[in-house]
Amino acid sequence: MKALMCVPNISEGTDLSVVEKVVDAVRSAPGVMLLDYSSNSDHNRSVITYIGQPKPVIAATRKLTETALGLIDMTCHKGSHPRQGAVDVVPFIPIRGITEEASIAIARDFGRYVGDTLGVPVYFYEDAATRPERQNLAKVRKGQYEALAQKLEDPVWAPDEGPCQFVPKSGSIQVSSRFPLVAFNINLATTDLDIAQDIAKSVRFINGGFRYVRAIGLSLEEAGMVQVSMNLTHYEKTPIPMVAEAVKREASRYGVSVVGTELVGPVPLGAMAQIFRYYLQAHDFSMDQIIENSLIGWTGE
Amino acid sequence: MKALMCVPNISEGTDLSVVEKVVDAVRSAPGVMLLDYSSNSDHNRSVITYIGQPKPVIAATRKLTETALGLIDMTCHKGSHPRQGAVDVVPFIPIRGITEEASIAIARDFGRYVGDTLGVPVYFYEDAATRPERQNLAKVRKGQYEALAQKLEDPVWAPDEGPCQFVPKSGSIQVSSRFPLVAFNINLATTDLDIAQDIAKSVRFINGGFRYVRAIGLSLEEAGMVQVSMNLTHYEKTPIPMVAEAVKREASRYGVSVVGTELVGPVPLGAMAQIFRYYLQAHDFSMDQIIENSLIGWTGE
Repeated sequence: MKALMCVPNISEGTDLSVVEKVVDAVRSAPGVMLLDYSSNSDHNRSVITYIGQPKPVIAATRKLTETALGLIDMTCHKGSHPRQGAVDVVPFIPIRGITEEASIAIARDFGRYVGDTLGVPVYFYEDAATRPERQNLAKVRKGQYEALAQKLEDPVWAPDEGPCQFVPKSGSIQVSSRFPLVAFNINLATTDLDIAQDIAKSVRFINGGFRYVRAIGLSLEEAGMVQVSMNLTHYEKTPIPMVAEAVKREASRYGVSVVGTELVGPVPLGAMAQIFRYYLQAHDFSMDQIIENSLIGWTGE
Repeated sequence: MKALMCVPNISEGTDLSVVEKVVDAVRSAPGVMLLDYSSNSDHNRSVITYIGQPKPVIAATRKLTETALGLIDMTCHKGSHPRQGAVDVVPFIPIRGITEEASIAIARDFGRYVGDTLGVPVYFYEDAATRPERQNLAKVRKGQYEALAQKLEDPVWAPDEGPCQFVPKSGSIQVSSRFPLVAFNINLATTDLDIAQDIAKSVRFINGGFRYVRAIGLSLEEAGMVQVSMNLTHYEKTPIPMVAEAVKREASRYGVSVVGTELVGPVPLGAMAQIFRYYLQAHDFSMDQIIENSLIGWTGE
């Protein structure tokens, strides 16, 4: 089966009755599996994750968007997380049997629908971006909702879809396509935060490290450890094991060892097969050899 | 979904029209997915692999057995592979959501059906064995088909199910339940067969190595390498990475390095998750985090 994942973030994380109504749009959508949803009241934001064949996922995402736009009013929104709209981000993620190009086309179609039918301005970002300066979400969302009215008047920031005029209730919707990212943290047997930060710098892209690695150093006070907390944004091109070994090697230069690692949230099967090939030197291992792989999308009926 | 695998071996690998008819019994069985089948004419034997929910797999196995017993006549069978019956072995393998106990019960039920309904003697082996001396298939099959008539007269070798008298056309059926095994070969950068054989000895159970490892040393003439060829019969209890590291370490004592490894045939998802936890030190990684895991047994309809 083909499988597309979608992970919309909505600007409501306090009034859980609203969140439930938005999540219901996914729950009641045929052919879609709700994998997870969580709310953060400080951020005043919720993240909803679901998967299915492309068509049902697109239909569910439309319904979710319509529901959220109806229920969430940005004019009174407060929250510590950057945001520019009631439905703040809608990333489509190709999981199985869908090319990155096809996923980008899905994101673009969805954006056109939001702009044309719902009348809300849309910015495409990441792989769906229409120009390089819009790839980075932080840049697209700079100034946030509060600066959006002014931004929309600037021709440089004309929306990719939808009206140029500001819609106070809804703000703008940021739509993207991206490769599935892997959230990967490595815990180190030291309380010296400088070491974690130095290692983060040496492996992350912006300082000259691996192309598809974002990383920061954190202190884990209670555990008495520090952590190199990473997002690997394209594990096929920057393999997880290469990054893990690099962090381990850098840590050893300080005489510090790795206590353990954490994979946070969903991990694609392809990332697991990669670890298999890498560490076992099983160069020709194929995903088709995984017994359970044949059971995906198959009920036996 | 629950998933049970079955891998019958039948004593026909030359007349492929017969093999196709036997395989058709699986192809036409509702709720069963044929994963693989292959014939070896020297062995005069075929291996058929399929998977599905327990009930359909049991039904397909009955049909396969009836078909094969109808078409294969052991009185004129010749082949280089040890065998004791037309349907020589029927191993049931629990893959997902089925305990080893439940799988043993399935094997025992199937054996009772074969004995009572089809009138063919049955020996249970491996995890389905009724006594320790029948666990080992080589012992159960000792003397092979040619010695079976005499064996059945020996009270020590009374069949577990079915008649004590010899059925010349069919021989006996050996039925088992076992954990999924992993066929794992490690190729070494040397042509010295002694080194592969020494390493095989040091890691395999019978010489004092790991409990769930069978191993031999082989020469790969064309590739100019030698191979430690292994069956890991319980990867949960004897982990693949522990064995891989042990072989690597032993090889390094001879100054020999590992060129690569091969996983032959199907590999359970659990074995992949194990590699993940082991090499990445991702101690708390759960199979539920694998995105595709949620799509098993689900079509979206």
